[in-house]
Amino acid sequence: MKFIAEIDIMPHKELLDPQGKTVAKNMKNVDIEGVADVRIGKHVMLTIDAEDEASAKEKVEAACERILVNAIMEKYTYTLSSEE
Amino acid sequence: MKFIAEIDIMPHKELLDPQGKTVAKNMKNVDIEGVADVRIGKHVMLTIDAEDEASAKEKVEAACERILVNAIMEKYTYTLSSEE
Repeated sequence: MKFIAEIDIMPHKELLDPQGKTVAKNMKNVDIEGVADVRIGKHVMLTIDAEDEASAKEKVEAACERILVNAIMEKYTYTLSSEE
Repeated sequence: MKFIAEIDIMPHKELLDPQGKTVAKNMKNVDIEGVADVRIGKHVMLTIDAEDEASAKEKVEAACERILVNAIMEKYTYTLSSEE
């Protein structure tokens, strides 16, 4: 079966996000008011061949932990859907 | 009212995503099999002060078009939720 995993990888809340802060500061320069905070992370889409959902989940978590996410600075959340 | 916008910014389907391709190729090196494709984009979280949902939406779309998204190479989707 084919699964699609949509992963969001964001900097921990406790950490400064200089990229986000810079974008937030510049909102006024492009005439946008009312943006109180910006945080920028990564969005990763995986297409996975796996036997079942449990095995697909395992692969997603392994991929996050081994290659995609720096756990010291980032946390991740994901959704998994099967593609017929 | 306070709104949280969760924005996904991804490279267009038609475009190569060299960062994603590199990660996909390396999945085998960290003992993960079955990952057919990887695409990498950005995830942006905006905290917005706005009078109502329509005005918050307007701000999100303005922010995407004016500063966050390069429409030539990327497309965006977002969800908006109000924070009580």
